[in-house]
Amino acid sequence: MKAVEFWFEFASTYSYPAAMRIESMALECGVTLIWRPFLLGPIFSAQGWKDSPFNIYPAKGRYMWRDLERICDAQGLPLCHPSSFPRNAVLAARVAVRFAEAPWLPSFVRAVYSANFADDKDISLSETVSSCLTSVGQNAASILKESQSPEAKDLLRRQIETAASLGIFGAPSFVVGDELFWGNDRLAQALEWASERTTA
Amino acid sequence: MKAVEFWFEFASTYSYPAAMRIESMALECGVTLIWRPFLLGPIFSAQGWKDSPFNIYPAKGRYMWRDLERICDAQGLPLCHPSSFPRNAVLAARVAVRFAEAPWLPSFVRAVYSANFADDKDISLSETVSSCLTSVGQNAASILKESQSPEAKDLLRRQIETAASLGIFGAPSFVVGDELFWGNDRLAQALEWASERTTA
Repeated sequence: MKAVEFWFEFASTYSYPAAMRIESMALECGVTLIWRPFLLGPIFSAQGWKDSPFNIYPAKGRYMWRDLERICDAQGLPLCHPSSFPRNAVLAARVAVRFAEAPWLPSFVRAVYSANFADDKDISLSETVSSCLTSVGQNAASILKESQSPEAKDLLRRQIETAASLGIFGAPSFVVGDELFWGNDRLAQALEWASERTTA
Repeated sequence: MKAVEFWFEFASTYSYPAAMRIESMALECGVTLIWRPFLLGPIFSAQGWKDSPFNIYPAKGRYMWRDLERICDAQGLPLCHPSSFPRNAVLAARVAVRFAEAPWLPSFVRAVYSANFADDKDISLSETVSSCLTSVGQNAASILKESQSPEAKDLLRRQIETAASLGIFGAPSFVVGDELFWGNDRLAQALEWASERTTA
């Protein structure tokens, strides 16, 4: 059965509306969903950007915030413009990559996105990540400890290298077999691609 | 009645599938369509780019060509990867901005896009623009002469300034009242936005 890999970064604005609905949409299509947290920083860095392109190019940034408002409105999602953007998501990404297959992972991912984009919480802080873990019924202290191990750090580094090797240059991205789809706008198409290949 | 302004550039890849279907879609929605040809060069230049971002960032470029293939496939549009990209569209843009309200303009726009993206013709050449004009039943020599007048050149320069002042940073873009929509992906949404405001 074909699967969709969901490549996301917790600081990425357009990953937010994708992350909030992808699990239910994948379930509805009968497509297996693989969660692939990564970081955009090293990918952007390789393109010569030291910041989010939405900060580097103000017209693009202004447009993105308005576009995201319209998208969240249509999806019934709360949205605040985070007081700091982009937030450092290394800790949250380490947790997510280390526990990518845990049954509580999807809820944790949504909790982190809500913290960042609905509640304007600083997701770079371990208190915030900790409270997201607690909110999904997990033992935050032990998970945070394990997510900071050299193995977990290495896992995230390798995940980012894999992203680059797949040709990923932004988030969210979706991978179905050899096909890459970029952007929240491509979520439905990626799922359709996967389910067509499944039934064919 | 609300209108949609269609901001397009003849060299822009994602403007191609938008340009080929926007007239019939606008007709179907009962939305007035205003053709706004411009050039991306000066806009990109102001962002520090001397070339198309699809050439500057190879991963983005590779993705775009594959994505465009999928879009054209779904739309039943022929597509060739132009042997030169992006092509200089100054002459075609001058014609289009000078004759933006001519009844033959939509057909001319589609002829130029087909030349560039389906037939791999060099649209920077006056022969190519000329044959596009002939194909829509126009007197190419007199139109080209008028499009090269100082007034026509100035008209295009001012159009590009207007684009920048509207916050436009890429193509295609759609403007409905105060709302900006960017990208071929937003065409249906822009038309919907215009028709909702019309009937409200």
